[in-house]
Amino acid sequence: MSKIDINTKIKNLAKEVVSEIEASKSPKVKLPLRGLSNVFFDEKTQTINLGDKLQTRTFFNVGQAKKFMQTFLIASACKELIATGKTTSIRDLYYMTKHTIGETKENTFDDQTESDPIIEDLEVGIDALREELHLFASNRGALVGNITIEDSGDTIDCRKLGSGGWSIPSIVEDHIIKFKKCEAKFILFVEKDAVWRRLNEDKFWKKYNCILIHGQGMAPRGVRRLVRRLTEELKLPIYVFVDNDPWGLYIYSVIKQGSINLAYESKRMAVPTAKFIGLSSFDQEKYKLPKNVTIKLSDVDKKRIKEILAYPWFQKKTWQQELKHMEKQGVKLELEALSAKGISFVSEKYIPEKIKKKEWLE
Amino acid sequence: MSKIDINTKIKNLAKEVVSEIEASKSPKVKLPLRGLSNVFFDEKTQTINLGDKLQTRTFFNVGQAKKFMQTFLIASACKELIATGKTTSIRDLYYMTKHTIGETKENTFDDQTESDPIIEDLEVGIDALREELHLFASNRGALVGNITIEDSGDTIDCRKLGSGGWSIPSIVEDHIIKFKKCEAKFILFVEKDAVWRRLNEDKFWKKYNCILIHGQGMAPRGVRRLVRRLTEELKLPIYVFVDNDPWGLYIYSVIKQGSINLAYESKRMAVPTAKFIGLSSFDQEKYKLPKNVTIKLSDVDKKRIKEILAYPWFQKKTWQQELKHMEKQGVKLELEALSAKGISFVSEKYIPEKIKKKEWLE
Repeated sequence: MSKIDINTKIKNLAKEVVSEIEASKSPKVKLPLRGLSNVFFDEKTQTINLGDKLQTRTFFNVGQAKKFMQTFLIASACKELIATGKTTSIRDLYYMTKHTIGETKENTFDDQTESDPIIEDLEVGIDALREELHLFASNRGALVGNITIEDSGDTIDCRKLGSGGWSIPSIVEDHIIKFKKCEAKFILFVEKDAVWRRLNEDKFWKKYNCILIHGQGMAPRGVRRLVRRLTEELKLPIYVFVDNDPWGLYIYSVIKQGSINLAYESKRMAVPTAKFIGLSSFDQEKYKLPKNVTIKLSDVDKKRIKEILAYPWFQKKTWQQELKHMEKQGVKLELEALSAKGISFVSEKYIPEKIKKKEWLE
Repeated sequence: MSKIDINTKIKNLAKEVVSEIEASKSPKVKLPLRGLSNVFFDEKTQTINLGDKLQTRTFFNVGQAKKFMQTFLIASACKELIATGKTTSIRDLYYMTKHTIGETKENTFDDQTESDPIIEDLEVGIDALREELHLFASNRGALVGNITIEDSGDTIDCRKLGSGGWSIPSIVEDHIIKFKKCEAKFILFVEKDAVWRRLNEDKFWKKYNCILIHGQGMAPRGVRRLVRRLTEELKLPIYVFVDNDPWGLYIYSVIKQGSINLAYESKRMAVPTAKFIGLSSFDQEKYKLPKNVTIKLSDVDKKRIKEILAYPWFQKKTWQQELKHMEKQGVKLELEALSAKGISFVSEKYIPEKIKKKEWLE
């Protein structure tokens, strides 16, 4: 989506209100409802999506007037960011728009928990990602591999980034990040930076011709969006490699289907082609990992497994088997547990074999 | 320190024990004591250091036999890592060395809280950083600026890394990371990645000819060691830019003096020349920041200020004034609060002015 589109959309939002004022009507703005009641799992696209229920925010309503004002304050600040070509954090935006109104003691925002949902309102309201509003989240995750990337005009050969790699920025839209020469045949997403480092040191990406990405735990927005673009534009398959515990599976599912909280983002963030290559709850027996590298499931883990078992996007027989086996075994496994079989077991045997034998879950 | 030195040191540790066994003596190993009772602030070097008290770990002692075994198990695994030229995480090392002993039900390690202190013992025991033992911590932080770096044989021009930057690896010893052409005249360390991004987008490092680093909060080991090497080998001054709260000041002090817990690392991690350029508790009045961008100090904050006020390394008059003013004002300030003065206030006015007028604390 181009700069002009977003700006026009923000303007249109305001124009409607202006014309209502000029017609002496009560100014109001209609926004998609973001709550759970308006979220559904789309079987066709295999992603979590937002329905079409709307909420109306009216200026002449004591309970809505402040939010109405905040909506346009945020929209106006984003419009300025886009006009000046600058980007900023949602925390920064809060400070930028926070002030005391006139002679009153009333603040535009009292704290960031007030401005963040307004940003989300604006995102769904004009159908734009926050990155397109020039707002960024935290900078986490890194990339190495057989691809050349252009970032803000700089050409970055990701085959020559040593042990560190390219720090993945939070905004990876195509006016900032462009994909150049790419020989890679797939993407390997690793939950943990320590395992990523191990794979990078063994030059896994070179040997198996891929792009190696970590997200330092839950994949941050920049990583999710980048992976989406790579799978969509370069048609690369992606394998997700996470701990065998409910949290690892959740990281996988957020990459693949999107999340309930931010359902409206799925259509530009979710990667429905993502494949789960491990760790599987069957791996301990399969690879004869010593029993003492397993960790007992806590009560919280067990509760979470039950929740995940009930999600519509985990209803396939294979997934139910995977989860129920974890429950039955009563233990979880960390990626690092594979090191009990040797330091390079993960890069020389586990992953290559899983991919070769197509041992993944979808 | 070269590969051979560390390997020799590990061997010598073992040789002593072997000769004790051969002489039918009780095998023991002497290690520096790491507790608070052996930590002191060295006024001369202005760093937190370890004293020379020793502890003895004896094999024929029921309370020490397991730790004795663990010490050599970890030492042996590190020796193998060094020999094969591979690196790994401390979590990985735990899994690599964890096994059940013979026919017993006794594990070498029950969990990682047992192996981590043994690694620290070994570090002080043979006077090596854990990075020299080929162990890495988490990969956090990024760098851009007027410097070319060689990382694992790849040449990285840090002037051409776009919005993302070079992800700083955890191990930055000189056999992996080498400094090439550097025009930069100073280092700016920023606590927060969002502010780093803002500064990078404004090409602050280009305009003011510097290296721009963030640590995503508390500077991780890789960042601390890298900064130490840059200041020492390239004689670059470093300015530290953190939130005005006790936690920000603590981040600064760990970079500068080291930490109490890891006092033995100070001699290779601390950067005694580090200068604090903000935020200062006097900045709100000085820059006429609106009152409503300040945040009230919590009880925990107040308690922490009192602790910091008592640290020997915060006894200078200027520091006492700074801290007491924060206490008196009763508020803290985040880096992002500067955005209330405009989105690029931080890059165009605040930092350049502070550096130019030498308004820092040491």
